[in-house]
Amino acid sequence: MNAIDTTAQAADAAARALADTAPALRAKALVAFADALTANADELVALAMDETGLAEARLRGELKRTAVQLRLFAETVVDGTYLDVRIDRADPGFALGPRPDVRSGNEPIGPVLNFAAGNFPFAFSVAGGDTASALAAGNPVVVKAHPGHPRLAARTAEIGAAALEAAGLPTGTLQLVEGVENGVAMLKHPLIKAASFTGSLRGGRALADIAAARPAPIPFYGELGSVNPVFATPAAIAARGPEFAAGLAASVGGSAGQLCTKPGLVFLPAGHGLDEAIAAAAAAEEHRMLDPRIAAGYRDGRDSILSAPGVRLVAEGSVRIDDDGQGWVTPTIAAVPLDVFRPHPDALLAECFGPITILVESPEDADYADLLETLFEGELTVAVHRADGDDVTRLVRAAARRAGRVLFDGWPTGVAVTPAMQHGGPWPATTLGGTSVGTAAIARFVRAVAYQNAPQDVLPPALRDDNPWDVPQRIAPAGESTTWGDRISAGA
Amino acid sequence: MNAIDTTAQAADAAARALADTAPALRAKALVAFADALTANADELVALAMDETGLAEARLRGELKRTAVQLRLFAETVVDGTYLDVRIDRADPGFALGPRPDVRSGNEPIGPVLNFAAGNFPFAFSVAGGDTASALAAGNPVVVKAHPGHPRLAARTAEIGAAALEAAGLPTGTLQLVEGVENGVAMLKHPLIKAASFTGSLRGGRALADIAAARPAPIPFYGELGSVNPVFATPAAIAARGPEFAAGLAASVGGSAGQLCTKPGLVFLPAGHGLDEAIAAAAAAEEHRMLDPRIAAGYRDGRDSILSAPGVRLVAEGSVRIDDDGQGWVTPTIAAVPLDVFRPHPDALLAECFGPITILVESPEDADYADLLETLFEGELTVAVHRADGDDVTRLVRAAARRAGRVLFDGWPTGVAVTPAMQHGGPWPATTLGGTSVGTAAIARFVRAVAYQNAPQDVLPPALRDDNPWDVPQRIAPAGESTTWGDRISAGA
Repeated sequence: MNAIDTTAQAADAAARALADTAPALRAKALVAFADALTANADELVALAMDETGLAEARLRGELKRTAVQLRLFAETVVDGTYLDVRIDRADPGFALGPRPDVRSGNEPIGPVLNFAAGNFPFAFSVAGGDTASALAAGNPVVVKAHPGHPRLAARTAEIGAAALEAAGLPTGTLQLVEGVENGVAMLKHPLIKAASFTGSLRGGRALADIAAARPAPIPFYGELGSVNPVFATPAAIAARGPEFAAGLAASVGGSAGQLCTKPGLVFLPAGHGLDEAIAAAAAAEEHRMLDPRIAAGYRDGRDSILSAPGVRLVAEGSVRIDDDGQGWVTPTIAAVPLDVFRPHPDALLAECFGPITILVESPEDADYADLLETLFEGELTVAVHRADGDDVTRLVRAAARRAGRVLFDGWPTGVAVTPAMQHGGPWPATTLGGTSVGTAAIARFVRAVAYQNAPQDVLPPALRDDNPWDVPQRIAPAGESTTWGDRISAGA
Repeated sequence: MNAIDTTAQAADAAARALADTAPALRAKALVAFADALTANADELVALAMDETGLAEARLRGELKRTAVQLRLFAETVVDGTYLDVRIDRADPGFALGPRPDVRSGNEPIGPVLNFAAGNFPFAFSVAGGDTASALAAGNPVVVKAHPGHPRLAARTAEIGAAALEAAGLPTGTLQLVEGVENGVAMLKHPLIKAASFTGSLRGGRALADIAAARPAPIPFYGELGSVNPVFATPAAIAARGPEFAAGLAASVGGSAGQLCTKPGLVFLPAGHGLDEAIAAAAAAEEHRMLDPRIAAGYRDGRDSILSAPGVRLVAEGSVRIDDDGQGWVTPTIAAVPLDVFRPHPDALLAECFGPITILVESPEDADYADLLETLFEGELTVAVHRADGDDVTRLVRAAARRAGRVLFDGWPTGVAVTPAMQHGGPWPATTLGGTSVGTAAIARFVRAVAYQNAPQDVLPPALRDDNPWDVPQRIAPAGESTTWGDRISAGA
């Protein structure tokens, strides 16, 4: 048995034990994981600073967010709404003949493989949202470490596995593999039942194709990137121009623009008059990019944008590659007239991962809704800046068709970790839908199982009449089903 | 523009209009569809009898079930729980900094392509569960007609489209395409956003691969077949032998065994003594199979089972192919000792679509849980027959890992259409999970969209504070989120 087999077998054994754990135990273990991260923050943040070049304040905030996220999932587990328990009591008078007692609830899907991201060494890595949601659902997790922070990944996995085990979860609940080859081998392993990924379109597509081509295909939840267009009405710019300029620069430059929700195209009226305000707000100290590969990609992408026809510079910014190949950057803000951009949008539409954005300077009467639907396929976010009196209904409906999150008078970076958050959208924003931020992320890693005419003593606790875990149960009583549809045909 | 384009464009146009319809209107239209089926039952059933060879009583029952199913989805639409509305109010005191107002709810995924099945000309065809759930979610549907009942498919689509349009839904809400080539072309069309399928493993896999290989992949919900193993304890057979024999024969022979939930392997104690009872119960008149291709496949599959080593006949049954190539069958019940079956299970493990089952005669102390996990990968159902005093806990947990529905002291055929029903299991029972029977089927055809800091007047009605559709809203008030996880760490 090779190392991949050993890891997969350990995950499978853990899956069986985990599936029978009480929610309170799993919740306690998630909180213990959070506490262990917090207790080791100094060591972990120092490692992360060294390996990623991200700033200390950002990393301390990210670690805190990661710990809060684990706690939030602990609450989600004990709350039990995610189990979607449905109880249809036996109904001898059912319209289609006697109906048996049928009960269903979500159960863990099985071992999950999580490909960690490079740009969030805590929040989308070993201890991140994909791991937290898969664990919360009762699945063991194998994390494929990101090569950008190998020592941090190993140390986080060590701390996490110890905390989970000390809290009473089985050995094998959290494991790590390293290297592309091992990641692919694990993705192909029959004992892996689902995978998650945050990263590039190219890498994500390659892995999604592998998952789909397995003898037994598995769901592959990839978050592959996004341009995150912003649409600002003339009235919004007139009312809040300086605030808009400052917010834009902060959203583009934060974390050196290495965020999947960085705004990449900003549609605003041609006469915005904000060049100076934007240039001033974009002025910043050099920030190191995550790694040499990303720096080289950013340099090339930026060159390509700046050499496109009709593009002018609002804030030039800079890219400097040092002797180690590391890239040092300040934000670049470019601009292009809509009538130049629109006939040949492709050069400017690809996601450029780094601190750059393009202002698309548009006539006052530009049809933003039409532009959005024509130019974009699937986005994590669409932002709308408007003022009182603007009718943005058509634009908002178009945005909902193209994106997972529609936000108003703000910026897409800084994704709130809350029950309602949706971080995922139509392809290529995500491969399969679902969200990788917020408690709804847990739904990706469960599947429903129904029990028909089951004796109480073999039912999962959540489905029992005595409901020992005190979870929400949606009960369809006998008799109610005989009236299905009558209410509607009579009343409408 | 070719015919496929025209159909896809019409579906896309309908999708936009449908997404803005009120639930009450959609519900009324589903009820109108149900009423139109019922009003045209004589004509539709006569067509179905002629094209499929299924018996009148079965077809009348299936049409009724299909109409009830549409009504049930009408109730689901107005109930609104499926929208999964979450409202997280703005929280200035959130642990991670001020939290915006975030609200999310499910919205329609877009035009759905539904590959109709041959064995349920109503319930899994033009007006079936996939169509009903996609329409309920607010999506237009393009049905790829099954070649086994082309006239029925065309007539059902005509009746359905007229009823939906008369009720106020847009033209293009329900359309039909015919032929494999057109089905594949539609599956590849960029305006199609999801697909569903019920049929063979081979056909379903081929279509799933096409869906996954698109430039923009889409979810493909296939239900590909199942062996539906049954496990009967010695005590169950001792207590209810004759009842067991009768139920088995009815479940295997009904609809000439052409059901995805037909029990294909039945594990029971070797000394069951039920040969005569089973043979008597299996005696039946000849029943026509659906079409010549299925008949030929059944004949070959049956031959292969009966020629496997150690197989004996309990009820021989018959297959007769007439001059038109149609197959006429009566149920076949075979038996094999576990110790012969287990070393070479493959010949007997493949689904044989038709009225045949295999009794696996096992020692009294056979480890059913181990057999289940070793032999089976993913099943729609596992049935457990037991008596008071039997401890079947391990077997049930194994069944839940391998199947979507675990049923007790009964037979898997006759799937109840209820909110808790789960008709889908791990691969190859289904491609992606989810259920194609019951109201939870609607979840396959929606995706969540979040709105952040949105003005009330541009929010979808379901997310508004005044909640005009009166749907369930899960509200996380400001302040509550600051205590996430504390409850657990303090209490545990």
